[in-house]
Amino acid sequence: MTDTSVFPDPVYRDTVLAPLFEGVKTHFADHMDAINRAHLVMLVETAILGREDGQAIAHALDAIAAETDPAALSYTGEHEDWFFLVEAELKKRIGDLGGALHTARSRNDMDHTQFKMALRIRAEEALARLLRLAGALLDKARAERDTLIVAYTHGQPAQPSTFGHYLAAMIEVLLSDARRFDAAIAPLDLCPMGAAAITTSGFPIDRARMADLLGFTSAKVNAYGCIASVDYVTGLYSALKLPMIHLGRVVQDMAFWSAFEVGQLHVPRSLVQISSIMPQKRNPVPIEHMRHIASVAAGRCDVIVNTMHNTPFTDMNDSEGEVQQAGYGAFEHAARVLDLLTAFLPACSINAERVAHTTDAACITITELADTLVRAEGLSFRQAHEIAAATARAVIAAGSPLKQGYAPFATAFAEVTGRPPALTQAAFTDAVDARSFVTRRDRIGGPAPAALDAAFADYDATLDALSAAQSARLARRAAAALRLDAAFQDLKGRP
Amino acid sequence: MTDTSVFPDPVYRDTVLAPLFEGVKTHFADHMDAINRAHLVMLVETAILGREDGQAIAHALDAIAAETDPAALSYTGEHEDWFFLVEAELKKRIGDLGGALHTARSRNDMDHTQFKMALRIRAEEALARLLRLAGALLDKARAERDTLIVAYTHGQPAQPSTFGHYLAAMIEVLLSDARRFDAAIAPLDLCPMGAAAITTSGFPIDRARMADLLGFTSAKVNAYGCIASVDYVTGLYSALKLPMIHLGRVVQDMAFWSAFEVGQLHVPRSLVQISSIMPQKRNPVPIEHMRHIASVAAGRCDVIVNTMHNTPFTDMNDSEGEVQQAGYGAFEHAARVLDLLTAFLPACSINAERVAHTTDAACITITELADTLVRAEGLSFRQAHEIAAATARAVIAAGSPLKQGYAPFATAFAEVTGRPPALTQAAFTDAVDARSFVTRRDRIGGPAPAALDAAFADYDATLDALSAAQSARLARRAAAALRLDAAFQDLKGRP
Amino acid sequence: MTDTSVFPDPVYRDTVLAPLFEGVKTHFADHMDAINRAHLVMLVETAILGREDGQAIAHALDAIAAETDPAALSYTGEHEDWFFLVEAELKKRIGDLGGALHTARSRNDMDHTQFKMALRIRAEEALARLLRLAGALLDKARAERDTLIVAYTHGQPAQPSTFGHYLAAMIEVLLSDARRFDAAIAPLDLCPMGAAAITTSGFPIDRARMADLLGFTSAKVNAYGCIASVDYVTGLYSALKLPMIHLGRVVQDMAFWSAFEVGQLHVPRSLVQISSIMPQKRNPVPIEHMRHIASVAAGRCDVIVNTMHNTPFTDMNDSEGEVQQAGYGAFEHAARVLDLLTAFLPACSINAERVAHTTDAACITITELADTLVRAEGLSFRQAHEIAAATARAVIAAGSPLKQGYAPFATAFAEVTGRPPALTQAAFTDAVDARSFVTRRDRIGGPAPAALDAAFADYDATLDALSAAQSARLARRAAAALRLDAAFQDLKGRP
Amino acid sequence: MTDTSVFPDPVYRDTVLAPLFEGVKTHFADHMDAINRAHLVMLVETAILGREDGQAIAHALDAIAAETDPAALSYTGEHEDWFFLVEAELKKRIGDLGGALHTARSRNDMDHTQFKMALRIRAEEALARLLRLAGALLDKARAERDTLIVAYTHGQPAQPSTFGHYLAAMIEVLLSDARRFDAAIAPLDLCPMGAAAITTSGFPIDRARMADLLGFTSAKVNAYGCIASVDYVTGLYSALKLPMIHLGRVVQDMAFWSAFEVGQLHVPRSLVQISSIMPQKRNPVPIEHMRHIASVAAGRCDVIVNTMHNTPFTDMNDSEGEVQQAGYGAFEHAARVLDLLTAFLPACSINAERVAHTTDAACITITELADTLVRAEGLSFRQAHEIAAATARAVIAAGSPLKQGYAPFATAFAEVTGRPPALTQAAFTDAVDARSFVTRRDRIGGPAPAALDAAFADYDATLDALSAAQSARLARRAAAALRLDAAFQDLKGRP
Repeated sequence: MTDTSVFPDPVYRDTVLAPLFEGVKTHFADHMDAINRAHLVMLVETAILGREDGQAIAHALDAIAAETDPAALSYTGEHEDWFFLVEAELKKRIGDLGGALHTARSRNDMDHTQFKMALRIRAEEALARLLRLAGALLDKARAERDTLIVAYTHGQPAQPSTFGHYLAAMIEVLLSDARRFDAAIAPLDLCPMGAAAITTSGFPIDRARMADLLGFTSAKVNAYGCIASVDYVTGLYSALKLPMIHLGRVVQDMAFWSAFEVGQLHVPRSLVQISSIMPQKRNPVPIEHMRHIASVAAGRCDVIVNTMHNTPFTDMNDSEGEVQQAGYGAFEHAARVLDLLTAFLPACSINAERVAHTTDAACITITELADTLVRAEGLSFRQAHEIAAATARAVIAAGSPLKQGYAPFATAFAEVTGRPPALTQAAFTDAVDARSFVTRRDRIGGPAPAALDAAFADYDATLDALSAAQSARLARRAAAALRLDAAFQDLKGRP
Repeated sequence: MTDTSVFPDPVYRDTVLAPLFEGVKTHFADHMDAINRAHLVMLVETAILGREDGQAIAHALDAIAAETDPAALSYTGEHEDWFFLVEAELKKRIGDLGGALHTARSRNDMDHTQFKMALRIRAEEALARLLRLAGALLDKARAERDTLIVAYTHGQPAQPSTFGHYLAAMIEVLLSDARRFDAAIAPLDLCPMGAAAITTSGFPIDRARMADLLGFTSAKVNAYGCIASVDYVTGLYSALKLPMIHLGRVVQDMAFWSAFEVGQLHVPRSLVQISSIMPQKRNPVPIEHMRHIASVAAGRCDVIVNTMHNTPFTDMNDSEGEVQQAGYGAFEHAARVLDLLTAFLPACSINAERVAHTTDAACITITELADTLVRAEGLSFRQAHEIAAATARAVIAAGSPLKQGYAPFATAFAEVTGRPPALTQAAFTDAVDARSFVTRRDRIGGPAPAALDAAFADYDATLDALSAAQSARLARRAAAALRLDAAFQDLKGRP
Repeated sequence: MTDTSVFPDPVYRDTVLAPLFEGVKTHFADHMDAINRAHLVMLVETAILGREDGQAIAHALDAIAAETDPAALSYTGEHEDWFFLVEAELKKRIGDLGGALHTARSRNDMDHTQFKMALRIRAEEALARLLRLAGALLDKARAERDTLIVAYTHGQPAQPSTFGHYLAAMIEVLLSDARRFDAAIAPLDLCPMGAAAITTSGFPIDRARMADLLGFTSAKVNAYGCIASVDYVTGLYSALKLPMIHLGRVVQDMAFWSAFEVGQLHVPRSLVQISSIMPQKRNPVPIEHMRHIASVAAGRCDVIVNTMHNTPFTDMNDSEGEVQQAGYGAFEHAARVLDLLTAFLPACSINAERVAHTTDAACITITELADTLVRAEGLSFRQAHEIAAATARAVIAAGSPLKQGYAPFATAFAEVTGRPPALTQAAFTDAVDARSFVTRRDRIGGPAPAALDAAFADYDATLDALSAAQSARLARRAAAALRLDAAFQDLKGRP
Repeated sequence: MTDTSVFPDPVYRDTVLAPLFEGVKTHFADHMDAINRAHLVMLVETAILGREDGQAIAHALDAIAAETDPAALSYTGEHEDWFFLVEAELKKRIGDLGGALHTARSRNDMDHTQFKMALRIRAEEALARLLRLAGALLDKARAERDTLIVAYTHGQPAQPSTFGHYLAAMIEVLLSDARRFDAAIAPLDLCPMGAAAITTSGFPIDRARMADLLGFTSAKVNAYGCIASVDYVTGLYSALKLPMIHLGRVVQDMAFWSAFEVGQLHVPRSLVQISSIMPQKRNPVPIEHMRHIASVAAGRCDVIVNTMHNTPFTDMNDSEGEVQQAGYGAFEHAARVLDLLTAFLPACSINAERVAHTTDAACITITELADTLVRAEGLSFRQAHEIAAATARAVIAAGSPLKQGYAPFATAFAEVTGRPPALTQAAFTDAVDARSFVTRRDRIGGPAPAALDAAFADYDATLDALSAAQSARLARRAAAALRLDAAFQDLKGRP
């Protein structure tokens, strides 16, 4: 059988090569150019390539950059892909020498290097958004440190707390998410260049120098791993999924808090859609949108991780160009939900009237009355609970708030203990007051002002440390870019 | 607290409204226009709206269509969304009357109607691709009905079969997938229009007529379900995921069959990437690409189904515009892998030399020898197995193919039974011949030609039935579009 | 290198073989026994095996059944697995002849046959539960046909409807789920026996007879597909996941409806956990439990489907014993949530007082007033909306229900139109009455009694058809079991 | 409507309470007992409870422990759950005082504390298994440092490397996984006790002391977060999923390497299932089992993470008892695949003959010949490639290995350059020798011995650090358990 077919088959061109080309020119062309320049500098520095040859290639690279607008190109099938297009452009300008740029390297190490360069930008932006949200929440939490809310368990009113306390819980999760994400960025700082196809090269390359010029902290060690390990991808998307799941839970609370019947959360007019005919109908639609955007972001993270499932360690397209690009949508969705939440929560406020109403209607301070009786009257828990429960039943039957229940309390007390309470009316009122409830809870992690202030200071420190680490990384990469440019210009300029 | 903020907040506009608008103008504007026309016709037919008012609105709709190019618009925030933009254009032309088009309907029923209209197009295209692939495989299976292959279990050579037999197994799964997908299209044919916001309307609307004009088979019954049930979405993406998972398994076989050391499958030059320096290195990369495209398609199906998880039944943005659009990517990926596979498999061929080599090296016909001894020599299974195993050991030790093993066979036979075999050399050769192996397996579902021909006829019938059903649906919808246009023109034209 | 190691390695025994054995004896031993008996009957009927040999084997099988208690056995490693244990027991009793039972079959076809037999029992039980839930909801929906509720969109009160109407929406989804699940059961009725290892057999087996004796409708055609296709697994778990996702959405509504502040749904004391000290705190915990049990059930369905991802078509352990068993947990979780919901929803009731309160507070009938003005007063939509909105604003400001708003309505009417309304006070009250709102919506799918009755009749028909189809399947399988037993006894008894 | 129903409804008892009870007695009873003891000690130390009362409770706890065998109990419905059973037992022994143990705490903080205690045991065991596997691979990698293999890209033979180099790539991923998992254990060391229901307590509790007595490093700060954050769960299962995905990729390589036609990996007899009749058929089934066990483990991790999706932050059963237990199956599956792989890989060996054969047949050293020509002969890349390609074509056509291709090489050289090569036959043979290929690659991360030795030393250091950190944690928790016991005994004993 004679096989006279010619690559590429039109279907392959249309379903694979053309989409890949579009992606490369958008996402990777700049990084490939930086890799080309750094590799050239290194080849000359290590004398693998002569300086004059290096200069000729350098000038050709500059000419191509000046004369090519990636965005204006569309895939023709003439060159297999972007890499071959650049190589052809080089050869068009400097002949055979154009091929020398590919000495001691491979598509394999170049690919994963550019994937990491593209991913680290997205990852740092996502981390910056997580930190910005944490900062906004921390400001809001301080502003709402003393704002009473109804805290729920099992979806039912349970105890008074403060909005600051609630937000602090959220901040703790978010800072943990940021720490996990920060850790997931670390592998992006290990440079695959020099791994070549699988095993490094027989040429005396300088992997550390490549890492340095491209803004990595060091070379990723095992060369096979450089081109086959995908845990920099799976680890990053796993870490991005978590805040999407966690923030989605807060979003569910916000949906409930802003329901017509609950009304604990006031969403400002700029963030609700209103019916012209139903003046009281306020749809706080950003909440719904945050829910599904976070869901899609989380789902898209799964897509990438699960695409690696049951692929060979040695094979690579499952973690390359197309799949890399498919992942970027997860970052775009994550960015939207983080930006929206960063604006949304600080813009909202607590409806104090509704909080007070539910606090009364649900008797949510009643347990503190029992605790007080144990402490102040020396009752057993059984007795204290019996009195508190009788008091609650009485005020609910009367439709009056607990704080007006001293009389039924005193009656219940007498019935259970056979004596009048030592607790005065003022002490009773204090014992069942929501503000007092909160103030008494000044243990580590409680909602009392001092406890919260201490926690806020901790969060500040964590946030500052994460921000400082990120700034240092960004500065290091910017400096590397300058070093690369200087070395490249130096190469071009010297005879 | 006075809330002086104005809708929409810039962040909400940028993160939600603008992306939504982009999606609507691309995906839904045409469908909304059809709904507007059908609803107008129905309002006039039921006398909910007077004919003259109807005519005025009809002419305004035509004018808007003529003067607006959705693709040229970008979101400004002036109108909340596309719907309000159209309403504003109507009012600009015919004043208050513009609002009358919205009588007895709601955004809710309009939304899900247009989502179904957008989805049914994609679903039918996907089904057409599944059927086209099945047809191509059926042609290929017939062409390869007699082509011997090595069939594997547990990744190891196990028995001879034919490429046609293998492809038939794949076709059966694919036809089942197509049947499931066909069933998942059915709910797309139930029209939500008339559900209005939740409960239908107090106006005497004609839901059946709306369904008819928009190319649905009938109205979806429960009005709350029309706007809250999302099982038309979840059911469809579930059904799309299955062929992506199933075809991915065949892709794994193709990857193995085309490995250098195995070589059972020849991939033509048009579908392999070749190294200039390593003439024998052939990377059948379409296989890898099919694997990850199918993986991403399957994952994107999960994204949509899982986005519905733990959302309220009553709430809706989780199943609306943005999420609908997020799903279309799954169809695009599925289309690519289906198109590529439809071209790829028919272009490939079986390397008969490699098949013969492995057949010999792995002695994969040896079980048939034992079976033959039971039938022809009346041996017990233990005896037959003992002789066969001894024969296999002998030819493997000698490095010769099984068919040249009559001498060691005769020796083993004599040792076990104490007599010479009745089986002649010719009968022995036949018993261990791969072609003969296949020919003897003419039971239902076996690889023998007659058995395969019967199966192919069955597949033809199933494929024809599915294709005919799809053609009928497409014809019905095309006819409805003509009816709608006629009714609309009629409305415009008559005084 | 000499390899003197002996199978099985202790680690392999402990991590794979022993767990497999436990699973087989629990889940598959009975089905393997039925397969053994049917295969023996078929071998004798087709004269592949002589009658006397068949009788001897039959008696041995009976003896093993009588003398072996699977539950009492634990894995020793003496026999690779359950299959070899049974074969060893046969040979212990009848020598070499014991091996003859394995003529013309293979572990491969036996395995998938027993997996289908085990799965069809679970699938029918799950379907029965879905149908039982649908029946219970249909009874409840009829009982609550006229019970007013507040219907929500975007989590906010939107319109009046009835509990019966809401439940009908849920029933429609559930019946669709049941139809999908019923369709997913169909592939379980195709028998793999006779596929043998991959390609059927050279012996003149009767595949149709095997299918018949084991309660299948027919042989699954392609023999390779019999042992390699796993779409009977993936299709079934996909179909089971959907109701778990869909019911979880209703569960979210129930959580909201039963929240303290909403209180539309009354959960009886038998289904709430109560605090001794907070008499009004009622935690309707079954709702939370239904949510997470459904989530875990859905997730476990995914586990099975995704385990098949990127496995070779030819390989099999990924779809065999262990994975089959791992799937059964999904059925157990699904059973629990379905049973709980079947008891929970009928036991709940609607709190009419709360419904009335929210109906008033949220002015949810206001749109009907505007519609009425268009119909009865011939106003334009703009005018009608303007009057309705002014009326709503006035009654909300006054804190009075809409039905007491005739005076502000008349004022607004006069201001907009310059004339007094023709609408009388009684007609106004009717126009804004929730019951009247519902009664007017008697279109297809609306909440009016007649519309609901018609829908209920449809659901009855669907439910009856699904139940009848299931009964027919169960009866057919029971009859097959009797036929198998009769044929086996007949074989044993005749000389 | 009078609600006379009594909790618990039988269905709720059977579908929720009874399964929960079974789980608690198996997984949490011991931890609840430790919490009870620590809380009692703390209550007395802080004088919230008098010493004599504390002693009475301590003796009662001891009595209950002595007289109750959790394993022997089954759920009766008499007590709602295990907690209430213990409280009832306390009250049976010491009356009202029994209730005092519950002072200043709640089910909420107790639950998450015991969940963390149960999870940290499983997490440390899983980490120990990851580290044990890494250690075993490191030993194996050292032993196979110089063992040549064929390294693949895109599933095709690409270059020579060593088994040690391949294993090192795997070790790097595994150590990263272990680091991620180690980081995911950290949140398990923050103690929720003292959070009480949501907000800590009005009693002067000592949260730090509770953390200390229960073996945590400190109190988890925010009290709401203590009972609502589930990121200790989601983070841990995310981190467990990753090695399951990553190891599954290596498993796919092993499946390919051990395929009949490839045969690069020899799996010993103790780990293959063999056919009695096909002596050469070796099914290395542990590989398949590792694949699906890892898949199920990964899937079960997803189940837990995704169960949290769209749950309220405030609600809790979605992350409590039942779901916690549902997660343990992921650890059991992970343990099996890790144990099996830890035994499997070291037991396997490389088939040097097959490696040599494929090395020759696939000409995988040809690129090094071209590189050598560039370095040694000063050719351009184009020339070097042209000569190498011509040489490869010639030896393949001749069916001889590349190392015997000096003659065609010299011919091609002369044709391209017009002169004879300076490269001697010996230098040519060396340039295309696989061992030489490897030895020349002594850059960072290359397969040359020195490069590998340096990498191994790094891995040792990482492994030692992770092991040491784990040992320190385990020692700290053991010491805390002794402190708790001493404090409890001290409390009991002193008057």
